[in-house]
Amino acid sequence: MPLWWEREDLKYVDGRLTLAGRDVQSLAEASGTPAFFYSAERVKANAKRVLDALAATGLPHRLFYAMKANRFAPLLTYLKSTGLCGVDVLSPNELLHALGCGFEEADISYTATSVSDEDLAIIARHRDILVNVDSISTIRRLARLAPGRRIGIRVNPAIGVGYGTNEILKYSGARTTKFGIYREQWDDALAAAKAGKLEVERIHFHTGCGYLTEQLPVWDSILEACTWFVDRTPGCNAVNMGGGMGVPHVATDKRIDYSAWGNVIKKHFGTRGVEVSVEPGDHIVKDACVLVLQVNTVERKKATDFVGVNGGFNIACEPVYYGLPCEPTPCRVQGDAFRAENLRHYTIAGNINEAMDIWYHDFPLPEVKEGDYLALLNSGGYSTAMASNHCMRGGYYERMLR
Amino acid sequence: MPLWWEREDLKYVDGRLTLAGRDVQSLAEASGTPAFFYSAERVKANAKRVLDALAATGLPHRLFYAMKANRFAPLLTYLKSTGLCGVDVLSPNELLHALGCGFEEADISYTATSVSDEDLAIIARHRDILVNVDSISTIRRLARLAPGRRIGIRVNPAIGVGYGTNEILKYSGARTTKFGIYREQWDDALAAAKAGKLEVERIHFHTGCGYLTEQLPVWDSILEACTWFVDRTPGCNAVNMGGGMGVPHVATDKRIDYSAWGNVIKKHFGTRGVEVSVEPGDHIVKDACVLVLQVNTVERKKATDFVGVNGGFNIACEPVYYGLPCEPTPCRVQGDAFRAENLRHYTIAGNINEAMDIWYHDFPLPEVKEGDYLALLNSGGYSTAMASNHCMRGGYYERMLR
Repeated sequence: MPLWWEREDLKYVDGRLTLAGRDVQSLAEASGTPAFFYSAERVKANAKRVLDALAATGLPHRLFYAMKANRFAPLLTYLKSTGLCGVDVLSPNELLHALGCGFEEADISYTATSVSDEDLAIIARHRDILVNVDSISTIRRLARLAPGRRIGIRVNPAIGVGYGTNEILKYSGARTTKFGIYREQWDDALAAAKAGKLEVERIHFHTGCGYLTEQLPVWDSILEACTWFVDRTPGCNAVNMGGGMGVPHVATDKRIDYSAWGNVIKKHFGTRGVEVSVEPGDHIVKDACVLVLQVNTVERKKATDFVGVNGGFNIACEPVYYGLPCEPTPCRVQGDAFRAENLRHYTIAGNINEAMDIWYHDFPLPEVKEGDYLALLNSGGYSTAMASNHCMRGGYYERMLR
Repeated sequence: MPLWWEREDLKYVDGRLTLAGRDVQSLAEASGTPAFFYSAERVKANAKRVLDALAATGLPHRLFYAMKANRFAPLLTYLKSTGLCGVDVLSPNELLHALGCGFEEADISYTATSVSDEDLAIIARHRDILVNVDSISTIRRLARLAPGRRIGIRVNPAIGVGYGTNEILKYSGARTTKFGIYREQWDDALAAAKAGKLEVERIHFHTGCGYLTEQLPVWDSILEACTWFVDRTPGCNAVNMGGGMGVPHVATDKRIDYSAWGNVIKKHFGTRGVEVSVEPGDHIVKDACVLVLQVNTVERKKATDFVGVNGGFNIACEPVYYGLPCEPTPCRVQGDAFRAENLRHYTIAGNINEAMDIWYHDFPLPEVKEGDYLALLNSGGYSTAMASNHCMRGGYYERMLR
């Protein structure tokens, strides 16, 4: 019986974990570890699935990959080559990096917060990027540099959506957040744009991370709330609904129902004459990647079996900081390794001198030995993008598998 | 009346915030921002205060600075030049960096976790560093590479201490942690050392972060628990008590009572014939540093006044991830700016597209305008050391002020 996450391009073949048809341990032995391996086909399939769901709405549509999740240059370059998507960037350096990887200005959506005048000067010099601003201050200052520019405005519907009951990743909701314009300031925002001769052609919102099918009712409420802004914006011809589509992290998570997701979009924007777009990041890259670490220590302390590995939370912070697990699995297994009676519970510990640096507490695995390699699933999003050199253990290798 | 954090080398002079006698805003305007400025004198004074407290115990003693908190090369080089301390390192790269900054092997304490064979090979080649191991597996593997080596063993007293009620920074306690050897495995650890011809000359423990005077009773219990290991280790002539001494983060925090702290050490180790050492990091550098950011946006959203600045939690993560605040203060103020009736409450927002990227919620400040500079206090520890290039907004400047 396959494990819950096994699929054509990520599965065991004769006891060897394979990604994109390659033996993961052999790759890791060759490159050294820590090493992130990406399946290009999976990246493409993930993008295609979202694009198809948008197409099924019957509306004009676009897909932008949110570089924030992972900016590995070969990944960006490959995504450009697929022709499936543009890219969403958040800062001058992300903009320049996207151009560097082959994206054209017209492929690039730029959505930033706490924008400085220096940032705006760079935006002004790139006339064809799709800029979304999220404060009246930015509108006023951009107007001085780029009168006549067409812009999007990020709005805040005061509703947030996240992964399960995770609160930390909600981007709007009960507490006032820094993002976007609320209804209370909408008239002022439009007036500032008009005064500055900026044309508001797009409404943008992004309201959370990691939502799956069970959160679609919230998604519905968010879109409903955002129609308020669309309907009050003469000249609005596009809606960017942000990112936030999640991936299953554990066996009990279900993949998002793309058809139901698209139907929510169609319900709210089907007759409003707008182009719809989304900017997923995690959803495109997270499950296309495994992080491979080598076991250096297997040791019982009190009643806990610790497995020490040669990489820590500084190169993949989501499990520790966000409660988004990367399940470990051995790169090599023998026989009926995954039968319940062959499993032991291990706590997988990183090599950073911080108490929280635990990859997984009490996870059931076949017997683990020193020298073994473990693959951490779902490690493609917000890992290298947020990696630090904490304890000067920041080294890692990345490779795209075609 | 001075603000709670003002002191000789960090205070307002004629409305200008000064650090080490320099006008902070002028420094920031010259270098650009984000910029971290350090007071060398404060670093030295912090180290001296701990060293004096150790000296007051009457015991042989040593001080190691924990590089993990901040590895800025000029800081390390300066610390070496003071002659006050050695350095504690956690990885091969930290070891090499310490040597690179002028420390000698004999100045270096090496305390790692989940140690790989590659790490051990580097440790073996540096014969005079003081290595502390924290698992029986490491003892066995080091013994193969370096028979006859003198070592310390990190122990786990199963008691933890932290800042206030903060749980995330405890390193030992109710839940079994990855660090150190527990009593249950102590005989095995000593037997493994003996079998490998390693001489155990030192007991090491580190049990939390940020403790102040009110946590000294826990400190007392920890030391009490650790005497168990010392008394069962023939040949033990030194005890390294780790780091963890905190600094005040808010007005209601009180500085640690050094005399009381030293008395706890004297109480437990005064007659045991051991050298005592500690390895503070934060305590040496945190309050010696301000991070300067420039305000680009001042805007009310609903009922919240947001101040957007040009740096985010990716370059100083403690406020967001650990609940350890860096209080903001303006680099320039006028007249009675800090009188209660002149203060407004601002939420200071970074420039990273993450909802949690807030420096401070509702902090009372004199009126803030776009273009102003804010200094974030207590930003010297675990900021640049854990900085990431998230959203490609990872740039910053650092400068030591002599």
